[in-house]
Amino acid sequence: MSNLPLIHAAYGRLKPVVRKTPLLSAPFLDALAGRKILVKAECLQHTGSFKFRGAYAALSNMDAAKLKRGVIAYSSGNHAQGVALAARMLGASATIIMPADAPVSKIENTKALGAEVVLYARATEDRDEIGARLSEARGLTLVKPFDDAQVIAGQASVGLEIAAQCEADMVEVLVPCGGGGLTSGVALALAETRPNWRVYPVEPEGFDDVARSLVSGKREKNTRRDGSVCDAIITPVVGEITFPILQKHCASGLVVSEDEALAAMALAFAHLKLVIEPGGAVALAAVLFHGEKLRADTVIVVASGGNVDVDMFCRALGKGALPQS
Amino acid sequence: MSNLPLIHAAYGRLKPVVRKTPLLSAPFLDALAGRKILVKAECLQHTGSFKFRGAYAALSNMDAAKLKRGVIAYSSGNHAQGVALAARMLGASATIIMPADAPVSKIENTKALGAEVVLYARATEDRDEIGARLSEARGLTLVKPFDDAQVIAGQASVGLEIAAQCEADMVEVLVPCGGGGLTSGVALALAETRPNWRVYPVEPEGFDDVARSLVSGKREKNTRRDGSVCDAIITPVVGEITFPILQKHCASGLVVSEDEALAAMALAFAHLKLVIEPGGAVALAAVLFHGEKLRADTVIVVASGGNVDVDMFCRALGKGALPQS
Repeated sequence: MSNLPLIHAAYGRLKPVVRKTPLLSAPFLDALAGRKILVKAECLQHTGSFKFRGAYAALSNMDAAKLKRGVIAYSSGNHAQGVALAARMLGASATIIMPADAPVSKIENTKALGAEVVLYARATEDRDEIGARLSEARGLTLVKPFDDAQVIAGQASVGLEIAAQCEADMVEVLVPCGGGGLTSGVALALAETRPNWRVYPVEPEGFDDVARSLVSGKREKNTRRDGSVCDAIITPVVGEITFPILQKHCASGLVVSEDEALAAMALAFAHLKLVIEPGGAVALAAVLFHGEKLRADTVIVVASGGNVDVDMFCRALGKGALPQS
Repeated sequence: MSNLPLIHAAYGRLKPVVRKTPLLSAPFLDALAGRKILVKAECLQHTGSFKFRGAYAALSNMDAAKLKRGVIAYSSGNHAQGVALAARMLGASATIIMPADAPVSKIENTKALGAEVVLYARATEDRDEIGARLSEARGLTLVKPFDDAQVIAGQASVGLEIAAQCEADMVEVLVPCGGGGLTSGVALALAETRPNWRVYPVEPEGFDDVARSLVSGKREKNTRRDGSVCDAIITPVVGEITFPILQKHCASGLVVSEDEALAAMALAFAHLKLVIEPGGAVALAAVLFHGEKLRADTVIVVASGGNVDVDMFCRALGKGALPQS
């Protein structure tokens, strides 16, 4: 069964409001990697990450009565901002449950977008449980961050756009991966529009549950829940809906070190003039520092977000152009 | 006489190679300014600034024999990189005369684009004289940074693009201004496509020769030649060709402090995920901190370049969100 009708329907709702982000490149990065690198700059999306796409796709598909009662979401920050802005655009109220250790900028921006923010301790509390309790008490509709068909269809619009923006026959597409919403969406869109292309999820070392799950064939968990600079993509476990999609369309996952992610941020600063957050830079890091695992002459990497605090960004720039490894 | 045929011809040559840069916005910036701000992100252009447009327009208009002998340019850095890349794309050699105090990244990037770099002392040497001498000795064609009809026509493509990207009836357009190539090009393009719009050159304090020239009616000089963080736009005096265009189309100039330019960079980092250099951020600074001098509900600012060293960028981020004034 084709997934394209659902994906195109979501993109149809998104098109009037979403930013069609550019596919950028730089001769210096191509020379460093020994191949053509195209960077899908989703850090330039509304709210600074791709998450707006899935959130708006989901909210714009809800019936008016549900929307009026309001929505709730749990998020390390980017999904929060996406839901907050989508809700504001559609005239709904949003309640957001965020980890207390999320970057200050993400918490502040979510509040600035008009959402009510409820903080929780990432290491000791269960965000799903908190979300379910609040939804019930207030009659809110939970907008899941990735395990939802409409959210995945919204993220799939990134895939539709890159398929239209790049004419190369054989491309490897690298996607920063937390719960798998973006990666599975991109994979679904490309499977039917660009069957020759290959899609890889990319994760940071120590939080490579998807790579391990693709090897073992079952949903592996991350042993740690925090302590990564890549806060946006350290989801405890890949989704129930997203994992089978990744299994079908992605042969294996790629893993990069934190220093490599920070070095990729410094290179994107210098050569692309983009602000990318650590979790959003892992795909660029993979093609720059683990190119031996890839085969295509053209590699598209999604720069999935740019919501990073000043201290972390300047720390990344201090790493200079190349990682210590 | 219409300038549009020349401008459209230049854009016709540019279109297959230039990056059509996005017009970005952020709710937080709109709230801060009390009006809609649209940022034309020319820092995302090839070589990190709008200068590629004028350079490619000029080189692609040269006859083959001239092009084969090579080109020469004098530049604080952004024009240098634009000419170097345009020359490489068109198979010509490029010699670039740069001030010794230009940001290291600009000098290195110009070399990386295959150009030969000749350094000079900004305070004591005359770059025009050096340029003329080298051109004659080597049979090179000088590509002027702004006082050239083809260069201005190339920069005018920024005006064509924003006219197509924004439908508002009445818009004020703010453009970082050094020698006036970009500002005059944008003004010419908009005068015929968007006659209701107003264009303002923006300069840093202490280097406001254009603002003073528009008042006095003659080409005033800057008293200092260096010592500004806005290295890209501290041209000693506005062009002979560009000044009459600015006189005809721009009523007055705007001036911002260095701290305001740095604060605008910090806000672009936080809310647009863009890397803008100090000289490229003066237009954004003007709408954010001198909005009382503007009248339109929608203001377009050109973020003209993003070639900034790490130290300067982190210094700007350290300024926080608002200037000291």
